[in-house]
Amino acid sequence: MHAIVDHIQSVDLKAGEATRRYLDTLTKPPGSLGALEDLAIQLSAITGELKPSVTPPAVIVFAADHGVAAEGVSAFPQAVTAQMVTNFANGGAAINVFARQIGAQVEIVDVGVASSLILPGVTSAKVRHGTANMVDEDAMQSAEAIAAINVGVAGVERAKKSGAKCIIVGEMGIANTTASSAVLAVLTGESVASVVGAGTGINPQQQTHKVAVIERAIAARNADPQAPLEVLAKLGGLEIAAMTGAYLAAAANQMPAIVDGFIASVAALIACRICPAVRGYLIFGHRSQEPGHDVALKVLEAKPLLDMAMRLGEGSGAALAYPLLQAATAMVAEMATFADAGVSDKAAP
Amino acid sequence: MHAIVDHIQSVDLKAGEATRRYLDTLTKPPGSLGALEDLAIQLSAITGELKPSVTPPAVIVFAADHGVAAEGVSAFPQAVTAQMVTNFANGGAAINVFARQIGAQVEIVDVGVASSLILPGVTSAKVRHGTANMVDEDAMQSAEAIAAINVGVAGVERAKKSGAKCIIVGEMGIANTTASSAVLAVLTGESVASVVGAGTGINPQQQTHKVAVIERAIAARNADPQAPLEVLAKLGGLEIAAMTGAYLAAAANQMPAIVDGFIASVAALIACRICPAVRGYLIFGHRSQEPGHDVALKVLEAKPLLDMAMRLGEGSGAALAYPLLQAATAMVAEMATFADAGVSDKAAP
Repeated sequence: MHAIVDHIQSVDLKAGEATRRYLDTLTKPPGSLGALEDLAIQLSAITGELKPSVTPPAVIVFAADHGVAAEGVSAFPQAVTAQMVTNFANGGAAINVFARQIGAQVEIVDVGVASSLILPGVTSAKVRHGTANMVDEDAMQSAEAIAAINVGVAGVERAKKSGAKCIIVGEMGIANTTASSAVLAVLTGESVASVVGAGTGINPQQQTHKVAVIERAIAARNADPQAPLEVLAKLGGLEIAAMTGAYLAAAANQMPAIVDGFIASVAALIACRICPAVRGYLIFGHRSQEPGHDVALKVLEAKPLLDMAMRLGEGSGAALAYPLLQAATAMVAEMATFADAGVSDKAAP
Repeated sequence: MHAIVDHIQSVDLKAGEATRRYLDTLTKPPGSLGALEDLAIQLSAITGELKPSVTPPAVIVFAADHGVAAEGVSAFPQAVTAQMVTNFANGGAAINVFARQIGAQVEIVDVGVASSLILPGVTSAKVRHGTANMVDEDAMQSAEAIAAINVGVAGVERAKKSGAKCIIVGEMGIANTTASSAVLAVLTGESVASVVGAGTGINPQQQTHKVAVIERAIAARNADPQAPLEVLAKLGGLEIAAMTGAYLAAAANQMPAIVDGFIASVAALIACRICPAVRGYLIFGHRSQEPGHDVALKVLEAKPLLDMAMRLGEGSGAALAYPLLQAATAMVAEMATFADAGVSDKAAP
């Protein structure tokens, strides 16, 4: 992990500025494409190129289980993690559908599913069979958290090698909103109640229970809020660690990463706490309905591209946002300038 | 026009309900795809099909000039309308770029550009050489407004004939935010100041002038707010009328229409005032930065898919939203059900 962090440089703001100037020569009122122009500027800052390509994108879904599921914090039984991995492998989940639409290769990585799982189409990189129950003991050892981060790094490096120009990571793991809420509350100092929501669909009484479980775990683990790796190891999850590693690797490789919803944003926050320069490489795909997401977005100073009241995970919201990146790059690469098109520029005011 | 209105039926709410039930059998927490599920339900209600297709889409851009441009209400000279039509014909404008990205055919229709314009790639359907200056006289005669509406109807019928499954209409016309603001103020009773913005980029002093011009025109024309065709003829524009016709025709043909920003939404409002059943066929692509758009969206009870601080027109925001419709249809058509995938449904609460 330390090797990858050493490779991360800040985004190239000069390249972004050059694109900002170029955008004002294109046949449209200056600034009239709003956030799409901001996106084009950020993509130039990430890649150092005026006309970068984000095609093809790669989707990597990390799956793992959570010991804290034993506390009854999820609407679904733990077995669903492995069942959904099978569904991913068979191409039937939402992320498969959206990945096909955007022409993305999909890799499914088992970084810690509880059951033994050998499936064609699933990369086996199991660090352990699910985390421990964080109410009773640390979710992971430090070395396991780092190993899971390295699984994420390796996933991005495989994607890059196969030609990917944009990284989308997703997750599957029953009870992973519980782990994410615990990590976020500690890293931000916000109350647990403010970062807990319905997850996959629990009722208000179950939410109250979920808050109590997380509060017990946080008190028992006593992680140092200034030590992101310690917080990740004690309260996080294996797939969350892998996503953290993926964001670190995207930044180290000067590739844009589209961040999905709540869990992905918590992983992104960990990556930014490990190395603040990562932030410039992150594009936030959508605003999740999970209330903790707003807390994470605020601390990351992020405004997501989409706001569609979604709460599925898997990378689905990031994949849906991808065509906007493609449009931003096409705008820069293909639009005519005022001079080329013989269109009169704005009248002098 | 009356013939097309007679063909409009309300959307099929039963088909929408069947899709709502089907969505809950797919491998995701119920409702977790939020607005994308609402979109799938609406597309079923529009087409009457559980698994409709929106591919390929068609983009039709209507261009026309406005006599009121003589009052100095725009940041750009009137000649830019014709210059941008040439840019469209050459494939260099934003809408061309975004249309290529979504695999849309593009038709450019001259419904009333002021100059004589014969260009390969531009459909000539000129009703008159721009509207009259609405400060001094009615922008159009009733018969001209109806002729322009019929140009829009014909455009959609050509698109349908060539296989289009989804309609995107855009516009080009220097000073058309002025005309749209006038129409909107009269139809809604809102103040002119509340529906006027920077358009293509005028300063606050110019905006004050624009408000005064519109107020003079509204007073002089004295259109009946309950008579949408009269308001359109006296204060509207030829391309606005054509867009109104396109929305009527999309509804009559049970095709989804993605509404672009401010000007498109005013045209959509006129269509809905002519025939309220049109509303069910409209999907709002994006929230424009033009302040009048919020007024139009409120009265249409519409929440747009995208909110990207854009204000370009041409149909650009609608084209950018199109992949979300495609994703909604793919979700229904391709996702596995819980039963098929052998995934455990939600635990009993």
